[in-house]
Amino acid sequence: MTVKMTVDELHAFMATEFPQVAGDYTVEEVGGGTIRVRMNVGEKNLRPGGTVSGPSIFSLADVTIYLVLLAMIGPQALAVTTNCSIDFMRKPAAATDLIAEGRILKLGRVLAVGDVLVYSEGAAEPVARASLTYSIPPAR
Amino acid sequence: MTVKMTVDELHAFMATEFPQVAGDYTVEEVGGGTIRVRMNVGEKNLRPGGTVSGPSIFSLADVTIYLVLLAMIGPQALAVTTNCSIDFMRKPAAATDLIAEGRILKLGRVLAVGDVLVYSEGAAEPVARASLTYSIPPAR
Amino acid sequence: MTVKMTVDELHAFMATEFPQVAGDYTVEEVGGGTIRVRMNVGEKNLRPGGTVSGPSIFSLADVTIYLVLLAMIGPQALAVTTNCSIDFMRKPAAATDLIAEGRILKLGRVLAVGDVLVYSEGAAEPVARASLTYSIPPAR
Amino acid sequence: MTVKMTVDELHAFMATEFPQVAGDYTVEEVGGGTIRVRMNVGEKNLRPGGTVSGPSIFSLADVTIYLVLLAMIGPQALAVTTNCSIDFMRKPAAATDLIAEGRILKLGRVLAVGDVLVYSEGAAEPVARASLTYSIPPAR
Repeated sequence: MTVKMTVDELHAFMATEFPQVAGDYTVEEVGGGTIRVRMNVGEKNLRPGGTVSGPSIFSLADVTIYLVLLAMIGPQALAVTTNCSIDFMRKPAAATDLIAEGRILKLGRVLAVGDVLVYSEGAAEPVARASLTYSIPPAR
Repeated sequence: MTVKMTVDELHAFMATEFPQVAGDYTVEEVGGGTIRVRMNVGEKNLRPGGTVSGPSIFSLADVTIYLVLLAMIGPQALAVTTNCSIDFMRKPAAATDLIAEGRILKLGRVLAVGDVLVYSEGAAEPVARASLTYSIPPAR
Repeated sequence: MTVKMTVDELHAFMATEFPQVAGDYTVEEVGGGTIRVRMNVGEKNLRPGGTVSGPSIFSLADVTIYLVLLAMIGPQALAVTTNCSIDFMRKPAAATDLIAEGRILKLGRVLAVGDVLVYSEGAAEPVARASLTYSIPPAR
Repeated sequence: MTVKMTVDELHAFMATEFPQVAGDYTVEEVGGGTIRVRMNVGEKNLRPGGTVSGPSIFSLADVTIYLVLLAMIGPQALAVTTNCSIDFMRKPAAATDLIAEGRILKLGRVLAVGDVLVYSEGAAEPVARASLTYSIPPAR
């Protein structure tokens, strides 16, 4: 798979298209079908006790596959999530950024499938895994 | 299944335990293993174009099963989501509250399973379906 | 949703297209987006102790949504499963037929989503629930 | 994770406990939390056209995580699948063995989570991915 968008281009795309959430995520690396995305964990992501909320982890998994898909097909497409299966396996570390490692497993004409492992920064074992399907609309 | 918490008790529990998000949800009805929950959709839930974001829909599905489970087992337990599978099937109506219809399919000693249909208020066809597993910690 | 194939037509289609497995399933009822399918449980479906195997339950869920989808779109289409999420909730009764209640939640142009509850015949509580996505190929 | 059962011990366990299906699978390698399992594809696994059926792929994914879990916890336990999410991504090659690469992502006290990639032998891209949760009963 060829990379059609750089880290900077992905950040610029997010800032333009999703200004409400763009600041929450930092793409650290993108390759042929792989990506690493940081969630800049803030007050709004936390639950009592300092743990990162489930919906925040879901959001990170969703954005991660969205971004790696975008990097592979380019910024013109408006892909939408059709399915996500997510396993919450461990409690995230308190008030610590999350790191998502995502990869594309299939890039078809109408569907793309990817999976993600999410870690608390510095931890060896994942807090969550997720697999997602995106529907790719026909090119205009 | 017997109902151990009323709508008012569920609201009070949310306000105490999850003050950050309690205002986002209104329990409209709770029965033996079933619940209806409204998401009071606001600016923060919207994406460009006015549609409700995927993470907001996930949050609603998660809260819905959490609340119906709580209503069945009582407020002492600290249940955590271990798995969610969610299908996004239709685009939500712009800037419209979401209504979730949840039910418990299994209430075991250590695991509970439920599923949810999510609708834009007033619409006949669901925008999403989700199934969730919660892990129930041993009673203290 | 209009029903385009009767129970007899579904049985005839299965016998022609899937002769290896057609005898395992009996469609008991089909309606607008709903279906009830019986799995005629035999020796090959059983595990030690007489319980029905997980793969047999998966097969039933898969066939159930396939058949109700076929009933809605007609016999010309070659739909394929793209995703299944299944929860095994209770142990099936020993050597007892399974009954699946399936419904279509979305019938789109390229994707269809349905869910299924599977019961041991005569039991009130489901042994499994599943949700499935089918990809619908373009009409020829 | 320590390996408590060798390939030969896993084969012997399968032959004793699941004689109906033991011949269908060959464990090729087992390590600390990882495994490779071959499905010896035969007539009963095929659909018209020679492709391997969805339920056969599901069975392989299920057995793969079962076996790697067993290898980690030893033969005394009777683990049961509670959830599986599976994505069928590509058509398997005709009449070709399947190879599953499985790994354990979490090995908890009551729940274990693993995921699997399934390939047609010799192919670079997976035909399916699956994630599974197993419930581990209390030691007797």
